[in-house]
Amino acid sequence: MRSLMVSPPWGLDNIDLVEAPTPEPGPGEVRVRMKAVSLNFRDLLIANGRHVRGALSVQPIIPFGDGCGIVDAVGDDVTRVALGDRVIPTIIPRWLAGPATPERIGAAVGMNLPGLGREYAVISQEALVKAPEFLTDAEAACLACAGLTAWNALFDGPNLLPGDVALLQGTGGVSMFALQFAKAAGFETIVTSSSDEKLERARAYGADHLINYRNDANWSAAARSLTGGRGPDFILDMGAPGTFEESLRAVRMNGFISVVGMLGAGSELNPATLLASAARVKAVAVGSRETFEAMCRAISYHRIRPVISEVLPWTEARRALESLESRLYFGKIVLEF
Amino acid sequence: MRSLMVSPPWGLDNIDLVEAPTPEPGPGEVRVRMKAVSLNFRDLLIANGRHVRGALSVQPIIPFGDGCGIVDAVGDDVTRVALGDRVIPTIIPRWLAGPATPERIGAAVGMNLPGLGREYAVISQEALVKAPEFLTDAEAACLACAGLTAWNALFDGPNLLPGDVALLQGTGGVSMFALQFAKAAGFETIVTSSSDEKLERARAYGADHLINYRNDANWSAAARSLTGGRGPDFILDMGAPGTFEESLRAVRMNGFISVVGMLGAGSELNPATLLASAARVKAVAVGSRETFEAMCRAISYHRIRPVISEVLPWTEARRALESLESRLYFGKIVLEF
Amino acid sequence: MRSLMVSPPWGLDNIDLVEAPTPEPGPGEVRVRMKAVSLNFRDLLIANGRHVRGALSVQPIIPFGDGCGIVDAVGDDVTRVALGDRVIPTIIPRWLAGPATPERIGAAVGMNLPGLGREYAVISQEALVKAPEFLTDAEAACLACAGLTAWNALFDGPNLLPGDVALLQGTGGVSMFALQFAKAAGFETIVTSSSDEKLERARAYGADHLINYRNDANWSAAARSLTGGRGPDFILDMGAPGTFEESLRAVRMNGFISVVGMLGAGSELNPATLLASAARVKAVAVGSRETFEAMCRAISYHRIRPVISEVLPWTEARRALESLESRLYFGKIVLEF
Amino acid sequence: MRSLMVSPPWGLDNIDLVEAPTPEPGPGEVRVRMKAVSLNFRDLLIANGRHVRGALSVQPIIPFGDGCGIVDAVGDDVTRVALGDRVIPTIIPRWLAGPATPERIGAAVGMNLPGLGREYAVISQEALVKAPEFLTDAEAACLACAGLTAWNALFDGPNLLPGDVALLQGTGGVSMFALQFAKAAGFETIVTSSSDEKLERARAYGADHLINYRNDANWSAAARSLTGGRGPDFILDMGAPGTFEESLRAVRMNGFISVVGMLGAGSELNPATLLASAARVKAVAVGSRETFEAMCRAISYHRIRPVISEVLPWTEARRALESLESRLYFGKIVLEF
Repeated sequence: MRSLMVSPPWGLDNIDLVEAPTPEPGPGEVRVRMKAVSLNFRDLLIANGRHVRGALSVQPIIPFGDGCGIVDAVGDDVTRVALGDRVIPTIIPRWLAGPATPERIGAAVGMNLPGLGREYAVISQEALVKAPEFLTDAEAACLACAGLTAWNALFDGPNLLPGDVALLQGTGGVSMFALQFAKAAGFETIVTSSSDEKLERARAYGADHLINYRNDANWSAAARSLTGGRGPDFILDMGAPGTFEESLRAVRMNGFISVVGMLGAGSELNPATLLASAARVKAVAVGSRETFEAMCRAISYHRIRPVISEVLPWTEARRALESLESRLYFGKIVLEF
Repeated sequence: MRSLMVSPPWGLDNIDLVEAPTPEPGPGEVRVRMKAVSLNFRDLLIANGRHVRGALSVQPIIPFGDGCGIVDAVGDDVTRVALGDRVIPTIIPRWLAGPATPERIGAAVGMNLPGLGREYAVISQEALVKAPEFLTDAEAACLACAGLTAWNALFDGPNLLPGDVALLQGTGGVSMFALQFAKAAGFETIVTSSSDEKLERARAYGADHLINYRNDANWSAAARSLTGGRGPDFILDMGAPGTFEESLRAVRMNGFISVVGMLGAGSELNPATLLASAARVKAVAVGSRETFEAMCRAISYHRIRPVISEVLPWTEARRALESLESRLYFGKIVLEF
Repeated sequence: MRSLMVSPPWGLDNIDLVEAPTPEPGPGEVRVRMKAVSLNFRDLLIANGRHVRGALSVQPIIPFGDGCGIVDAVGDDVTRVALGDRVIPTIIPRWLAGPATPERIGAAVGMNLPGLGREYAVISQEALVKAPEFLTDAEAACLACAGLTAWNALFDGPNLLPGDVALLQGTGGVSMFALQFAKAAGFETIVTSSSDEKLERARAYGADHLINYRNDANWSAAARSLTGGRGPDFILDMGAPGTFEESLRAVRMNGFISVVGMLGAGSELNPATLLASAARVKAVAVGSRETFEAMCRAISYHRIRPVISEVLPWTEARRALESLESRLYFGKIVLEF
Repeated sequence: MRSLMVSPPWGLDNIDLVEAPTPEPGPGEVRVRMKAVSLNFRDLLIANGRHVRGALSVQPIIPFGDGCGIVDAVGDDVTRVALGDRVIPTIIPRWLAGPATPERIGAAVGMNLPGLGREYAVISQEALVKAPEFLTDAEAACLACAGLTAWNALFDGPNLLPGDVALLQGTGGVSMFALQFAKAAGFETIVTSSSDEKLERARAYGADHLINYRNDANWSAAARSLTGGRGPDFILDMGAPGTFEESLRAVRMNGFISVVGMLGAGSELNPATLLASAARVKAVAVGSRETFEAMCRAISYHRIRPVISEVLPWTEARRALESLESRLYFGKIVLEF
């Protein structure tokens, strides 16, 4: 079979298509013929050798952790899935249920475990979720990382009610999932972006209010004003430099901020701003298989289709990563097999 | 001013229209010119002299606790509302925030406090909520008891997610609010009734699945079947005889049952059924002013209009209570001034 | 090796000691040399052929689900435990984390899976917890069922605070664990029993207040009186006939009742009592391995020693079950190997 | 009566003892004869004119918000307290129940409302809590600010279990309350300080482990080591410069950090550290009267006595504030009348 491989000295110049033996499933495992993978911001860091917490890796790795495929061989003792099922591998394969622990989240597909950028992958039956039927392969390939992160950001901790206000930063993959989930849950939504064009597209996905922070980096005042001075009940913070301070200024007293990204470098944190907010903050860590299955029920019931910016053949991984790097996308970038 | 009054020996024959002095607001109080009241099942019990926990009362009382009016006089030190505001009195006036306590819920309008069935009522500014602007007076008069009970049943404790399944028993005032709130929150819904006609009307309000329990008193099997064997994540139990056992059989393992009504007499409870369900159960007690305000935000954002069965002049209270007694209504019965 | 076996036509006359092949661990499994098992009320039901939800079973079964032993052989791919470790098998082996689901709790040791009443048992490494070091074997054999049930009853849902009042019914295994956990968590405690002698022994384990319900079956009044009229914040309800109604009358408004037992037959449930309580109720279902490990941390830190009524040789299982049937025990009955 | 007064140009040189008319209670109010007040770090900021969020105030103010006294005159319509009751005024008088909102916490005693540093204060009956009987006046004067802050930090959000590990920074008033509450709730405790002497005193109050961060500013490694690598489940962060980063490094994955102080200036926040922690963070805002009453039940049941560093006559407010400024205290500084 063919497989993508990214190797030292790293960088987009060092992604290659290689030949590798087609793997066979052992007991409790299945082989998945990949149909599509989608890109996440982490894949750029990994392609640059920054696999885990910034340390430079020395081992080549098959990239991408977010994908969808068809079960085409089944090992012994497999009961959870069957030949021909369309499945989505969980990106954190040992995290089945419960909160994040180091044991559960220590291994991640396409980071310190081989990724899904290959024609066939062998995966434990425990690390698979059935793909919602109504989705295309490309769409189903978007759920495991960006989808689940957005879901957890909104629903693990904040305990929002219909009619509460959720402010979502940006229009990338996580943010667009969050927008659709927020609408499904009946929240009023505010989307921020530096692009009026992207904001208009967000409006088409249900954004109630739009803030272009290019015009006003201190967007907290606009967010307060849109909520009658009260502040949004929830903020999805993408971790860009300086946004956290603004999130604290914007959020409703005792409101909730989910920090999901690490788009930026260090930020100044003023404890007085934090205290005045009386805010609750959570650093989001994707989610468990159990949470993934709950998300799939919501996606199926609400017929939520992931927002896809661009679909390329999987052999054009480099071009796709460049597209990701450009920040010009709206939603997810997908590679199809 | 004129006022309704229900007196010993109680019963619908003993509801009279009487003359009473128009009250004046003291410090922190306002006078509300009533525009509409709505009926709740409790009002039937009270009209029959069963004001609190079944004990027969000896004092006449002004009936009805659920209404809407206009502030037409303002006492000293009033800051929360102003002359001309359209307001809804809270039915449990001392319950401002936090969970139910005996101190908070000991006094209820139209039960052991004078009710709203009169042209003018003087009310503490603390016991008022501003009516959502887009609602008619009749609609706004439905929120304080049935609306808030439904809201609390769904959102205080169950922690449901979009795509979760809520089964709602019946098509009375509380159930129809619960249906609309459940849809706003993105839940899949099942409605039960003994009338196909009422079920069809529930469908128009968003019910995804319908069960006529007249055909099958053991409706738990139908509920299981509609949810792929899993059982609804949530059940609104109206307390009719025998329903609780069925709710326990129907509900998803570790699911949530909110018991809101007392339509029926004693029921057999089999602890083995309770244990096998691993269910969580809550007896719902209307709600606080703070919860009321959160509900109003959702009602305004989602443009939720209470389901009204019938509107009569307020002087026809007796006829309205007979209508309530007949159980033929769908949604709320309202009296207008 | 030798093994206990209970067979149709069931009953304590049909528990035999039989010879069986010593099992070998496969991949991911270990062999545990049993050191002790403890009895639970369920074991009496099972010995009488009522394995699951009352249906009469036809297959013989090795009894007991609650025990402790030493790892004495290790299969391939075992990483969680090592040779010589003292371990406790989880009684619900597939429940690793998260809430109860049918998939997780469908199989139980000593019920529809072979029990621990034998010299050697082969067990998946996933279904083991390390025994707290300071406990004796007999003590460690008491945690998996009664201990975990008590823990979950107190800590999954009620969200009690130090100084809150917990009323615990009875002085059996679950209740005595609950008493010790409640003291560790700083709760004020009330214990009920029909025996003054047992109540005095409960006092020695930290019970602050004692109620003998033989003197007064309507113990709710006593419980109210001990709490200044407020009612206990939490009640552990053992499911004896009529107790649930009394629990509803006793519990603080909006308090929490954990129902853990099924000591009795059907009870009358008056929905009006339920509604007036505004109570929250949960039917408890043992717990997950993750919860078990949290409990072990607390047991180790607080040096909590299970209360043991009687220790017998494991070959005297019949006598032990008769002792359980007599209801004369205080705490747990243990069999040692 | 005599009253303290701090005035522009602010600073400890501008605290005076002045004569003022003895106030009379209006309807719903009582007059409290002050017995003791205790100092909080905020009082230093306020004495320097930084009343609210750093803006320099122009109005003189009576200092101190944390105290205890005797009801010595009662206005009309007072039902919650009686003549002769020993009471503690709530420092945030409008916060009766529910979460923090701007309306509730906008007014604070000794900040933008007149403080308790005077012989008599008139206070709404709604803003009083009965003092636990077994405490001295000086002890009871310590609860409203430092006590309630510590209580909320531990019990509103973290949902800790007995045996969980709580790390508490420092040995000031809030930290010593937190230590005592943590022990009452059965948590294992770690205390950090820059003084070995203070650490030894903390040990006498139940600290299980001690870390002197003077020796090692990167105390997160020590905290990890004391918890078998897992990290404390909870951290009380006092907001000193740089501590938040260390708290994020120390805390257990998905653990909880309550930020209560603002001892320091701006800190660098590295979003990558935040994300890797998967932590939950809350900025604590004292607490409501309802929470205060729950705390008092725990204090009474556990006989928790506030840790008092020093008691001075109330006329020596300046000396007491200098003592606070020196940071040499251990626990609370109290002024007695």
